[in-house]
Formats: sequence, C-alpha cells, structure tokens
Amino acid sequence: MECQDYGLNRTSEKDNLNLNPLQRGGLLPKESRKALFEFSDGYSVCDYCAGRLDKIAKPGIINFLDDLARFIGVDQARTVHGAREGKFAVMHAMCQSGETVVVDGNAHYTTHLAAERNQLNIVEVPNKDYPEYRINPYDYKEVLDIQLDKGTDISLVLLTHIDGDYGNLTDARAVGKIAHDYGIPLLLNCAYSMGRMPIDAKSLNADFVVGSGHKSMAASGPVGVLGLKDEYADQVLKKSKRHAVKEIEMLGCTSRGAPVVTLMASLPHVMQRVKKWDEEVTKTRDFVKKMEGLGGIKQIGVKPKEHDLVRFETPIFDEIANKHSRRGFFLYEELKNKNIVGIKRGQTKWFKCSTYGFSQEQVDYIVRSFADIVEKYQNY
Amino acid sequence: MECQDYGLNRTSEKDNLNLNPLQRGGLLPKESRKALFEFSDGYSVCDYCAGRLDKIAKPGIINFLDDLARFIGVDQARTVHGAREGKFAVMHAMCQSGETVVVDGNAHYTTHLAAERNQLNIVEVPNKDYPEYRINPYDYKEVLDIQLDKGTDISLVLLTHIDGDYGNLTDARAVGKIAHDYGIPLLLNCAYSMGRMPIDAKSLNADFVVGSGHKSMAASGPVGVLGLKDEYADQVLKKSKRHAVKEIEMLGCTSRGAPVVTLMASLPHVMQRVKKWDEEVTKTRDFVKKMEGLGGIKQIGVKPKEHDLVRFETPIFDEIANKHSRRGFFLYEELKNKNIVGIKRGQTKWFKCSTYGFSQEQVDYIVRSFADIVEKYQNY
Repeated sequence: MECQDYGLNRTSEKDNLNLNPLQRGGLLPKESRKALFEFSDGYSVCDYCAGRLDKIAKPGIINFLDDLARFIGVDQARTVHGAREGKFAVMHAMCQSGETVVVDGNAHYTTHLAAERNQLNIVEVPNKDYPEYRINPYDYKEVLDIQLDKGTDISLVLLTHIDGDYGNLTDARAVGKIAHDYGIPLLLNCAYSMGRMPIDAKSLNADFVVGSGHKSMAASGPVGVLGLKDEYADQVLKKSKRHAVKEIEMLGCTSRGAPVVTLMASLPHVMQRVKKWDEEVTKTRDFVKKMEGLGGIKQIGVKPKEHDLVRFETPIFDEIANKHSRRGFFLYEELKNKNIVGIKRGQTKWFKCSTYGFSQEQVDYIVRSFADIVEKYQNY
Repeated sequence: MECQDYGLNRTSEKDNLNLNPLQRGGLLPKESRKALFEFSDGYSVCDYCAGRLDKIAKPGIINFLDDLARFIGVDQARTVHGAREGKFAVMHAMCQSGETVVVDGNAHYTTHLAAERNQLNIVEVPNKDYPEYRINPYDYKEVLDIQLDKGTDISLVLLTHIDGDYGNLTDARAVGKIAHDYGIPLLLNCAYSMGRMPIDAKSLNADFVVGSGHKSMAASGPVGVLGLKDEYADQVLKKSKRHAVKEIEMLGCTSRGAPVVTLMASLPHVMQRVKKWDEEVTKTRDFVKKMEGLGGIKQIGVKPKEHDLVRFETPIFDEIANKHSRRGFFLYEELKNKNIVGIKRGQTKWFKCSTYGFSQEQVDYIVRSFADIVEKYQNY
C-alpha cells in the first residue's frame, strides 16, 4: 500500500507573524533547536537510564528537575506529557471515583476531561459573566460552604491560573487560602502562566501546579510539568509494589524523547524571559488600547489586561463579512496578505490573539495592518 | 538563579555503532528529521485543529491514521504517548478496579504498572524457564480455566508479542483464539514488533494493539500507536458528555507536537522496511551463530531467533572482568575503543543487543570486534 501525502510543512505558520496565543509561548530558542536535532532519535534520552527517567544524569534530567523545582517553588518536579496529563495524574492519585472537585467556571476543557476520566463530579465556581468573566476567589468559599453543608466529598480544589478564553488572571493565593481553610489541597493549572510569568507555587498557596512546555515554556510538544509539595509526594509519586523504583502515576517514565530535552535547553531562556513579564503586560495593554481605538473592537475579559492572551469582540469585522464576497474568510485573507496569521479562518465576530514575544515594531505593524483593513472597508 | 549544565549532547550514542535494542528501531530517516525541524515549535501540529487531533487535515493526521490503521490491520487507530499509555487507556476503559488481567510472564514492567495504576489484579501465564523462557500459548488456556473456575473476573488478556528480555516471539493468533473462546478480548503489546515486522492485528486475533514510535517505528519519542476493532470503539474511544467531540481516554488530544510528525514522516519508510523483516531475522541468526562460535557466549531465549533482540550469556567476559583492573567496565571500554556502544557499562555476565538496521558489513565488524576482545584476553 501507498501512503497519502501528509503535507508536512508549516511554512505559513512559522514564517509569518502568528497571533495564535497557543503558539506564542512555545517558540524554541536556537539552543533548543540544536538539542532537538541532537536528541531526535527514538528513545534518545534513555541511553544512561538506570530505571528512572527523573534520575537520569546524562543528559542531566535530575539536575534540570532540581533547577525547575526551585524556579517554580515546589518541593518535587516531574515532567509529564502536558498540563492535562498532570491534572489527570493528580486527580487519579488524590481522588476516589465519585468524589468531587471544585473548579473555576473558566477551566480548560481538559480539566473537565481529566475529572471525567477519573469519574469525578465537578462543581463549578461560576465566572461573573459578560464582559469580564471574572472569577472571584471568594466565590470558592461560598461554593465550598454550600457543598460541604450538603455532605459532598470534595477531595481537590482546582483553579485555572490564567484561563484560555479570556486570559484572566485569578488570585491563586486567595483561592489556596480558602481551600486550605477547609483542609483541601489546591491544584493550580499554570498552562498559560508557567514559563511566561514568574510562578512561585508556595507563595501562591498551590499544593500542585501543572505547566505546559509546548504552550508556555518554549518547548516542543508534548511535554509538561508537574510540581508538588513534599507533603503529597507519597501519594502522587507512589511507587509500584512490584517494581520498587517506578512511580505508578508516571507509568514508570513519562517524557521518553526529544521534547524533554527542548524543555531543558529552554530553561535558562525561560528563566530570563519571565523577568520581563511586566514589559509583556505593558505591551499587551498598549496593543489593546490601540486596537480598541480603531472603533468597533472591544476587549473582553478583565481590564486592564494582566496577561498576553487577549479576546476581542470585533463587530466591525463581522459587519464587513456580512457584505463581503469571501464572507468570514475575508479577514483571514487580508491578514495573510500582510503576513499575519493565527486568527482562525472564517472567524470575524470575535477572536483571541497574543503579541507575546513580538517586538514593539512588530506589534505596531500588526495594529497598523488591522487599521488598514478597517480603513479599506470604511465605506463598504 | 542559574541553571546547571545539562550536558545536552549525544555524540557518542549517535555516531558510534549502537547495539542497544531500545535504540535500533527509533532511528529517524532524513525525511523525519526534516519534519521534526519543521514542526519543532510547541503546539506545532495544532494550527488547524477544529477540536480533534485525530481529525486534523493539515498536517494530514487524519489521512495518516487511516493509512496506519490499514497498515496494522485495525479498524481505528490513534496516536498515544507510547505503548504504556496505550495499555493504560485500554485497561482503564475495559476493566473495573478489582478485576483481573491475564498477562504473559515475559510482560514488560509497564504492563504491570498500567494494571497497578488501574487497581487491577494480574495473573501471569508463566514462561518455561531457562534457557528459552518460552511462553506457551496453550498455557493461557490452563490459566484461564483455573481462574474462571475460581470465579475470577477477567476482563482482559494481554500478550507481549515480542518481549524485551529475550526477544521471544509468541504466537498471538493462538493466544487470541483461546481468549476469544472465553469471550475475553486480547490486547497485544507490539512495542518491539510494530514497525520492525509486519503486523496484522486481525489475523493475529488481537482486539487491541499498541505500538511504540520511539522503540520501533523510526519516530522521536514520546509517541505510540493504539489500534482497535470497531467493536470496542464505543468503550475505549468514548466521548465526553460535556465536550461532545472529545475522547475521554485520550484526554481530548494526545500527541500535541513534533513526535507525531516524525511518526507520520517515517510511515512510508517503515512500510518498506517491514517487507525486509526476513532479512533482519536471517542477519540476526547469522550474528548469533558467529557470536556463539567465539566460545563462552550463549544465546538465551527461543532458538532460532525470530527477532533482532538477542540476549547473550557471556561467561567468557565475566571471567575476564574478574581479573581485569577495570573490572566489569573493561568490556564497555574495549567496545567503545572500537566505536561500538549500547552495552551497559559494567555489564559482563550477560547483555542484550540488536543488529537491527545494520548492514552485513557493520555486523561483521561488530563480530570481529568481539572476536578481537576474546583473542586479546585469551591467556589473561
């Protein structure tokens, strides 16, 4: 039999200005491209394994995990395949089927799936609706009070540090304090924060944190981070009865290949870039202000922005789409002509975007491009 | 804080002749190195995702999975993070906590961990001990009879197609027939077979197969294959109640990055190489014969070999080690001087090796190198 053509190139998404928030934090610095090439073959990191991936000294995974743990303020760190697999592992170890996890109303779908796969019930702390969709930390207290009064078995509280719909930052420290007042541990989903902004799990009152290498830590996917307090290590990193060194929730080993090496090679770069987080936030706020200044564009979510992921409502583009021969595709195509990609094809009512990692010149060019489109269709 | 030096190079293991069976089947052909470079950034395969990784058309994951399913004789194929994650997913979907899986006595430790993580009991079909460690398919019947008589709840039968200790091939078709006679499905672990030798799950009576991209399919890790019959798709690929398109056991999506692209790019290469499996077996048998001809070296496991993974008992090297100033390290060092790596440092009583993918000239050189070492220490 013959294989079909899989179209294995990514020129357009790599070589243009890509506004997709999912793609902004996962760009590899050159040292990580080099590492990827070096460790491209199969089980490349396992040459010197003595039974535990996290103890391998060549390449220095053991040293890396030590550095990483200090960087994010946890006692123990492991690599996992991604934030979702980290959440699944924590829930699997900490919760029994039929128990309940309390999660924010802006949680990522993978939080729901991790709970569903573990046969857990989900109770949500709702967001504050349009246009901010804010999560109020103190609503966790209200939800916990109601549920515990009802006798609900709550084994875990989860908060999405930065959500993927609105890019809202929620005060983890306050949520963690509330959870701890009830004796329940907090799992903080840092997929959109760890690697972009500084994270200190201890000061955030997080007992568990998960991060995403491919989303926010300048690594090839799939690779993520699970960090935890020593207090929970016996439970979450429990070892096999039969294979005494192997951790059950890790199925022995997790990141058996190239992505973990890119995460390692990128750590020094990531450590530096989180120091410039304030600049990224300032740049984002300026971007929002200029975009809103074009008219018919409105930032949704908490204002002012505290993260680079921005959601805009864009009635102005939707009105153009309604009259345009290319309908909703016109915006994608106009942007593409200006070497800008990452807004979904056909989408004009609203979109998510990010300028993370772009220079001010690039951001100015992006704003000017949107302005040109608005102007072109002014009397359309 | 500063990062430690992680030593991110792999020159020795890449540029020498590497005998480690774990590394022989995961070497990337050049088209996959190219794909890896193209898709190195973060969430690179997700540019055109509409909610399901396995349905992405650019790159052509949907077409690839279709080709792959035909190649291995299954109705449905998914990528997973590796064979172990595939086994865990099947057990998680098919078995309830407290139930029993019947597995071969040569099963990989990850089979035990997947069961343990699912809180399943394991009953083993023992191997036939030294020196063959053969698994007799008909012993599955005996074990099943005994267990079912006792009222044990057996929800899955698992066979390691080629085991990682002896490289023994077991007749899956016969085991599958027995399992089916009792109405129990068979999960076939093809980590060491799929991608090296032809696999047709249907003719092997396997309801589920798992494969390993990094071990045997010329792909970067971590990536694996899960294949199944339509009959079990509703259960194993069950969709989320809340997120209607997302498959629960996949946590929505699995291979979010570069490794899946290397698996795709390698498929044409892998399809070609399995056609030459007979040549690999012939080469291995010849290698074994010549190695045994050196004296004091004995192949363990079923004879003649039906797979490239070979385990040798090597009392001749152990005797030298006992007298050598470098003790057990002498063998590793002698081989390294001859540009041969992949035998564990310090190991001389026995070792596992493979000549998979080496040319006959390279194999001859390897044999000559062992002969030279034997000769050098003849009167030691």
